[in-house]
Amino acid sequence: MPEPTAAIRLDEIRDLARNLPGPDLEAGTAARHREAQLTKPAGSLGRLEEIAYWMACWQGRHPPELRHPRVAVFAGNHGVAARGVSAFPAEVTAQMVANFGAGGAAVNQLCEVADSDLRVYELDLENPTADFTRGPAMDEEGCARAMAYGMMGVDQGLHLLCLGEMGIGNSTAAAALCTALFEGTADDWVGPGTGVDEAGRARKVAAVEAGIAANREALGDPLAVLRCLGGYELAAIAGAILAARLARTPVLLDGYACTAAAAVLWALDPKSLDHCLVAHVSAEPGHRRLLDRIGREAILDLGMRLGEASGAALAINVLRGAVACHGGMATFEEAEVSGKA
Amino acid sequence: MPEPTAAIRLDEIRDLARNLPGPDLEAGTAARHREAQLTKPAGSLGRLEEIAYWMACWQGRHPPELRHPRVAVFAGNHGVAARGVSAFPAEVTAQMVANFGAGGAAVNQLCEVADSDLRVYELDLENPTADFTRGPAMDEEGCARAMAYGMMGVDQGLHLLCLGEMGIGNSTAAAALCTALFEGTADDWVGPGTGVDEAGRARKVAAVEAGIAANREALGDPLAVLRCLGGYELAAIAGAILAARLARTPVLLDGYACTAAAAVLWALDPKSLDHCLVAHVSAEPGHRRLLDRIGREAILDLGMRLGEASGAALAINVLRGAVACHGGMATFEEAEVSGKA
Repeated sequence: MPEPTAAIRLDEIRDLARNLPGPDLEAGTAARHREAQLTKPAGSLGRLEEIAYWMACWQGRHPPELRHPRVAVFAGNHGVAARGVSAFPAEVTAQMVANFGAGGAAVNQLCEVADSDLRVYELDLENPTADFTRGPAMDEEGCARAMAYGMMGVDQGLHLLCLGEMGIGNSTAAAALCTALFEGTADDWVGPGTGVDEAGRARKVAAVEAGIAANREALGDPLAVLRCLGGYELAAIAGAILAARLARTPVLLDGYACTAAAAVLWALDPKSLDHCLVAHVSAEPGHRRLLDRIGREAILDLGMRLGEASGAALAINVLRGAVACHGGMATFEEAEVSGKA
Repeated sequence: MPEPTAAIRLDEIRDLARNLPGPDLEAGTAARHREAQLTKPAGSLGRLEEIAYWMACWQGRHPPELRHPRVAVFAGNHGVAARGVSAFPAEVTAQMVANFGAGGAAVNQLCEVADSDLRVYELDLENPTADFTRGPAMDEEGCARAMAYGMMGVDQGLHLLCLGEMGIGNSTAAAALCTALFEGTADDWVGPGTGVDEAGRARKVAAVEAGIAANREALGDPLAVLRCLGGYELAAIAGAILAARLARTPVLLDGYACTAAAAVLWALDPKSLDHCLVAHVSAEPGHRRLLDRIGREAILDLGMRLGEASGAALAINVLRGAVACHGGMATFEEAEVSGKA
């Protein structure tokens, strides 16, 4: 990965995550006011109404807009992949990045349907993180650099940032993050990922247990947990979430690995994810558990478990529907429709 | 409503519903074959994979397409509305039809996001059905004419037909249909609809109970149930579902009233809805109960309860995502991505 122009230390990120700007409540109030006048029974658009409010609050704009979404996929490789934790060989990470470039992956098709910009960020695929069963996956500098790289995925003027990942082995890293951040055993957080059998799942559980044992000093410090048990693409996602907050860009999180990266920030301060919605709940069982733990309900529940931001890209048009209804519907007065009797 | 060119009798519809064409299994097999080669772990697109298969089967085409969806909203008025069963006055049906025409309703915005054709069909709004608490809502001719009118909403060349309704009082009619078709009491099937209070809900329950008592001779004959307890727009929806099957057009059903109309056909023959998916589960509690009863899981669950095909219009882009992934993704061979280890 290229060097970010300014070095950033994990301590700076720690401070940043605890001092993030809040919602624009003026824009939110304007959204509530308009919503009440639109030609429909109060509340009848359900979650679409909440989404329009949330978009206004976090864009700091009323009415909210959704003309320029971006899907950002971060790709990284994992030392722990050598432990037989994935159904696919590690070279698939780079092969899929090439597939993204050629337009052949699921996320390419879904971005086209969503009329979304797609950016793919490779994080030094030739140099995987260290195998976390033997010690920290990343050193301080590597982790901070990956976070800073993720921050670079956020430009001014985006109306929505969808985050996702590609990295063979990263459902094991996600399970390790969750085991370290929350209650529960490795077995609670490990699932079949890309489709390992029971023996493969047992290897994943063993890898997570060994990772926790080898990195005990990280427990209790979420950024240390990210550094010791995460991966470059997961650190980049955490960085992108922070940068989006500063740029007033609402965020859609994809599946298990993406949400596990976000959960690192949640553990620093639950409010740090207030500008994020979870696009879908993955078929990977740990994701539902994680959403319960951080108090989130996903927008879609379609049994997807692909990663690569596919669920987030698919959810863009739900948000667009919410924004379109909020901004485009007539009021009772404009349409001369009688109100509630 | 205009006269359909050819009269149709309810007995003809009864025969039609029991002799509908089946899926195109050749197109379905081609879909399964292609799906297995696409660059993703098997099954990882979850329900999107099932949707692509279903679209191929019911379009009779591989790969399936979704360039020309249509949203059809049928509007009708209900004699039972005079019994204080809605939070809104009956004139809102016609006012909302005008709002659809002017582009000011939720469904207009959602059709724009979905790049969908929108057609609104008025069914003699000046002449509501009879109050079903005193006898049949429709006579044979009126019900058959409404069904035939619904059939006219289906043209050749549509890739998807989304169905929805507008009709003050029709959540009471939907509850009456469900009470007559399935087990359970009126109280089980009646909800707040557009937002009535407990006294209003009690009036709805009483109206359904009176409707069942006044139309006992209809029980056991689904089309008689539709005629005696339904409404013009609900009969039109049932007609449109049948015509779509004959035209090889897959169907997306909207919320409670729309699915209750479809349930009439299900009661004639459960296979008659095999070309239909349910777009969303409504916040109206009877809808979830109804979906359980007919063995369907909705695509979206967003707490919506607006009707007017809004949930169906919102779900179009989920289907479009499924079709785009299926048709546009590279195979493992094309992309030179390694398969499962």
